[in-house]
This record gives sequence, structure tokens and C-alpha cells, in this order.
Amino acid sequence: MAERSQDSLVAVVMAGGRGTRFWPHSRNARPKQFLAIAGTETLLHQTVRRLDGHVPPERIFVVTTEDLAAETRRMLPELPAENVIVEPEGRNTAPCLALALVQIERKVPGGVMAVLSADHWIGDREIFLEDLDLAVDHAQSAHELVTFGIRPTYPETGYGYIESEGKGPVLQVKAFREKPPADVAMEYLESGRHYWNAGMFVWTLADFREGLEKHAPDVLAPLDAWTAAGAEPSALAAAYGQLPKVAIDVALMEKAGTVAVVPTRFRWSDVGSWPAAIEFHQADSEGNVTRGDTLLLDTHNSAFFGGKRLIAASGVENLIVVDADDALLICHRDRAQTVKQIVERLQAEGRADLL
Amino acid sequence: MAERSQDSLVAVVMAGGRGTRFWPHSRNARPKQFLAIAGTETLLHQTVRRLDGHVPPERIFVVTTEDLAAETRRMLPELPAENVIVEPEGRNTAPCLALALVQIERKVPGGVMAVLSADHWIGDREIFLEDLDLAVDHAQSAHELVTFGIRPTYPETGYGYIESEGKGPVLQVKAFREKPPADVAMEYLESGRHYWNAGMFVWTLADFREGLEKHAPDVLAPLDAWTAAGAEPSALAAAYGQLPKVAIDVALMEKAGTVAVVPTRFRWSDVGSWPAAIEFHQADSEGNVTRGDTLLLDTHNSAFFGGKRLIAASGVENLIVVDADDALLICHRDRAQTVKQIVERLQAEGRADLL
Repeated sequence: MAERSQDSLVAVVMAGGRGTRFWPHSRNARPKQFLAIAGTETLLHQTVRRLDGHVPPERIFVVTTEDLAAETRRMLPELPAENVIVEPEGRNTAPCLALALVQIERKVPGGVMAVLSADHWIGDREIFLEDLDLAVDHAQSAHELVTFGIRPTYPETGYGYIESEGKGPVLQVKAFREKPPADVAMEYLESGRHYWNAGMFVWTLADFREGLEKHAPDVLAPLDAWTAAGAEPSALAAAYGQLPKVAIDVALMEKAGTVAVVPTRFRWSDVGSWPAAIEFHQADSEGNVTRGDTLLLDTHNSAFFGGKRLIAASGVENLIVVDADDALLICHRDRAQTVKQIVERLQAEGRADLL
Repeated sequence: MAERSQDSLVAVVMAGGRGTRFWPHSRNARPKQFLAIAGTETLLHQTVRRLDGHVPPERIFVVTTEDLAAETRRMLPELPAENVIVEPEGRNTAPCLALALVQIERKVPGGVMAVLSADHWIGDREIFLEDLDLAVDHAQSAHELVTFGIRPTYPETGYGYIESEGKGPVLQVKAFREKPPADVAMEYLESGRHYWNAGMFVWTLADFREGLEKHAPDVLAPLDAWTAAGAEPSALAAAYGQLPKVAIDVALMEKAGTVAVVPTRFRWSDVGSWPAAIEFHQADSEGNVTRGDTLLLDTHNSAFFGGKRLIAASGVENLIVVDADDALLICHRDRAQTVKQIVERLQAEGRADLL
């Protein structure tokens, strides 16, 4: 069964994200997936290497934006250059995946597409591949769109949830639920039937096309017209510009009648903030995480992501310090969500050099 | 009377200090007196400019060490180059002032020497000059060694104290008191008779020579022998190396029978730490002091001495942040005294590049 999956399995890695929450390390030209914030390799490298031996390089595709394409190709020399699919502009995930579809279905007819994120961390590679195969088998046998559901470990209010029904290793989606308030998130956590929606999907190319044609024709038609006209690269921007800016969840998943969900067994993190990244580093006996050259006196529960310079700290607690060549962040550990506001302020002030 | 003082008044500015407490701004090659930490001019500039119109440049002498001499001359182009007197090595204040004596007494016979520190801040220039003249008059008329006493404004335990007796604008020193424990410092504060010893003195050259010959002949004799032998610059190091490493307070002031003290009326600070330097800057409505490029969110009672980069802070309180090209200091406001420990650690680790 695994053999059958692998023969036609195509991986589509969405890698167009910005990740302002890791400023000053993340920048427009160096988004989260290019950073080694969870482990020694970048998240993009980890995502692609996780497929080693399971999906051959020629069937791994990465979708990213124009400005990130060159660096993405440089980071992934094992992939054919044309497998880095370039969005003329970011228009959310439905156009991104429709573009991948029209490019890939010509190359891998009869294929099954696994949609992965370039900037998530996944532990337990073998289990991930088992769960992936389970989803691929179900997509091929039941001809359903398949999503992955992450078992919640706390009442997160920043994710969408998938409410499931049924039993066994593959469940049915009863409903997609929006980001909940805290009390509802707690109910979801306790229900045992709700999963985090991690934006990872598996479907056959044919079922995906059928779903888009039925539920989101405006996302597909301009691309089909572009393909029919010869798929001229120079004409893509005009076609792509016609697509609605919409997430695949809204355009397709929430409208499709039957969607399956595979409750995952691998460990997962979207590494959504500096505190989440800190969790991937071993703290010393004082609770400090340090990278680079540091000298700490009476300092506790803090994280220092150094650059080229010495960071000396004394009498400091619960801080996150991130040192870049042109900017320095000093943030209370409980205020990491405000890093986004800092980036917004810089945008408002026209500080393009720091973005 | 003022005219008479000025005709023979010589200023000797001691400028050999190191000032490790302002790391990472202060370095071996850039000590405290070279920093503009209290105002827009360096403390050295302020010390010399304070004498403008009162002591002509040719009678202002600066004593410093070999490694700082070139920069000191560069910073003070108005002084004759030979007025920057170079100590072959730092051997505390008694040798420093004895060296100044033997160099100056040939140039300004009958002169009166005012000993000033290069790294103290003094407000109220006119009052300072009045107090200085008062001391000069007393030194010339009473032929006593004169010291300045700073009125304590809090029970500082880090300074030596001068216990006075008598009445009027010039008092007598009853005793020099060592750095006191906290309860004694409080007694001194409340007594009204105790003053901080700021290490500023006035005496005639003749009285100073007489005092050294009587109480500290070993500090003077090798220099007199060097002078008698022709004052060859190349022979100074050997002579200087024979002098005991001793402070002028110990070598002379505490032994001299009668010493006068002028209680000062000017505002004074030795700017001994980052928090003291912060006091010289206007804080914003959140209690923050900023220099350079900063972006602050929900940040209070903190000080940011920026360098070339943006410093962004969020949710931060009571921090001192000092950014240099090669090092960054993040220190709780109440732990500024530990900066010295940081420098000691760097010394112990052989990090000469950061010292």
C-alpha cells in the first residue's frame, strides 16, 4: 500500500509566508521558513528533508513568491529549479494551491497531492510518514479531500479547529470551527473530538480539481484559461491577478460535503512566536537559553539569540533578546505577541531597511 | 584679590582614570573622561572649558598615562602639547601630583596649584570659580593645604568623608574618614560637619613641595633626582617606577597637621555609574531616557543608550541598555554596580578586544 502511494505522491510545500513575529531575525527577504529557529536546520530544509526516501525530489514542489524564489532554489539544490513554483503575488492559499494544481497535473497525471507548510516543525518523522500514507490511501480509495487534525494540548485560541465524528484512524469532518474564544477553546480541548487545523491536506489531483470546479470555479478558471493559452510565464501575472484572495479552507474545505480528517500522532508546532522557538532550545540551570556570545550575571528565564556581538546581561529576568546587525529586540517573555506591532510600526514609519 | 589668584593659578587636571563602570561605552582606550555621559561634551572638555577666562590654556596641565596622551592632546588642541603630562605608568595620585609639581614649578615659580578631576561633573560654573578663588586665597594667605568638601545629599558609603570644625567660608579639617558603613554614613549626613572628599585640592607649589618633603619624601626624591640630572624624558620611567603607589590623601593630607576645607556651593557629581549618568538626561513621560534610534512599546523607567542600530523594546521595565558596535549591555537599573564584575570577567577570560 505504501508502495502504491509513493508512486504517485506529490508534495506541495507552501513557502510564501512572511512571519513578522520573528523580527528582527525574520525580514521580508528572510521569512520564518528560512530561519533555523527550531533545530539546526531551517524549517524549509526540515520540511523537504522529512520526505527523503518517501517522495523523490522531482515530485516535491515548493510554492513561493517572486522575491523569495531565488533564495528558495539556492537552499534546495536537490530540487529541479522548475519545481519552485512562483506566485506572481501572494493571494492566500486557494490561488496558491490552484496554481500548483495546474502546473503539476500535467507532469504527474493521476497523482496524489500532499499539501505541507514550509514553516511548521514536525517531530517523529517515521510517524509523520505513516500518517501521510494513511491520508494518501484514504484520498485514493475514498476519493475524499483529507485534512490533518492536530490533537490539542492546550486551549489555543489562535488556531481554527476541526470538529470530527466517527471512529477509527480516519474520521469525518463534522465542521470547521473558527478561532474560538477561551471558554470555547477549553470545551474543544476537553471534547476529544476537536483538532487543530494545521492547514495540511491530501487529495488526488483529480478530486482537488473537481472540488475547485464545483465550489471555487473563480479560483481555477483563469488559470485553466492561462494553461489552455500555452501557459506563457509572462501571462501568468494577469491571470493570477484575477483570482480571489481566499484561503483554501474557506474556498473549498468548508463547502465540500465530505472531508476526512486524519488525527495525527506526530508532534507538531507551528513555531508561531519567539517563546515557541525558545522551547526548542535546552535551557541552562537558570532557565536561560543562549545562542552566540553571552555573559550572564544573576539572569534567569531569559533567552538571548545573539548575533556577532557579546551580549552581557545582569539582573535580568523573563526577557527575550534578539540581536541582529541592524536592530535589537528586547521583549518581555509575556509580550512576544507585540513583536508584530513593532513590525507594523516600522511599516507605518516607512523603515523599509528594517523590514 | 581675584586678579592676584589668576596671575599665578595653575590647574592640574588628573585624567588617567579608567572608569570600567561605563562599559561597553568605556574601554581602556576610551575611559570615562572621554565620554559625553553628562551633557553634550565629554567630561574632560567640560573640566577644561570650565576654566575658560579664569586660567589661561598655558597654565592648564593635564596628567594622563602614555596610552591616553595622544587622544587627550587631540581633544584639547587649545592646550600646549607639553601641558599634557605623561605618567610612565599609573601609580595612584601622590606620584601623579608630584610629577606635576616638578614639571610645573620650573614653569610657574610662585604658582598656586588647583587639582581637579577630569571625570567629575560640576554645575554652576560661576560658583565653582568663586569657590576656587576662595581656596586659592586661603592657600596663599594662610599657607595651608586646602581641600574641597562636597555637602552630602544622601548617606553615600562609597566615598571618603572630611570631618570639619570651625566656622566661616573656610573650615579646618578635623579628620579624614574612610568610606563608612551605612549607619555611620547616616550619622555623617545628619552631623552637618561632614563632607564628601572629592579629591580636589588647592595649594601653593611651595607648600605642596614642603608637605611632600616632610610627609612623603619617597614620593618626591626620585623625581627631584631626575630633575637634577636634566629631566631626560627617557629617564623618567626609571625614576617614576621607584615611587610608592599611594594616594595623595594617605601620603600627605592625612599626615599634614593643618588642612583647610572649603565647603562647596556648586552642584557636583562623580558620575560614577550608568544610573548617575541617566540623571543627566531628560526622561519622557514613561520615565524612559533614550539616545539613538528606539521604538518602545509599554516600556517604563528604562534607559537606552543606542548605537548605530534600532533598539526595539516591549514590556520592559527598569532596564539600562547600552549598545556598542561589538557588545551590548542589558542591566537591571538596580544592578548597575555589577557592570564592574562584567568587565572583570572579561579581563579574566582574556577578552582584550572588549576591554
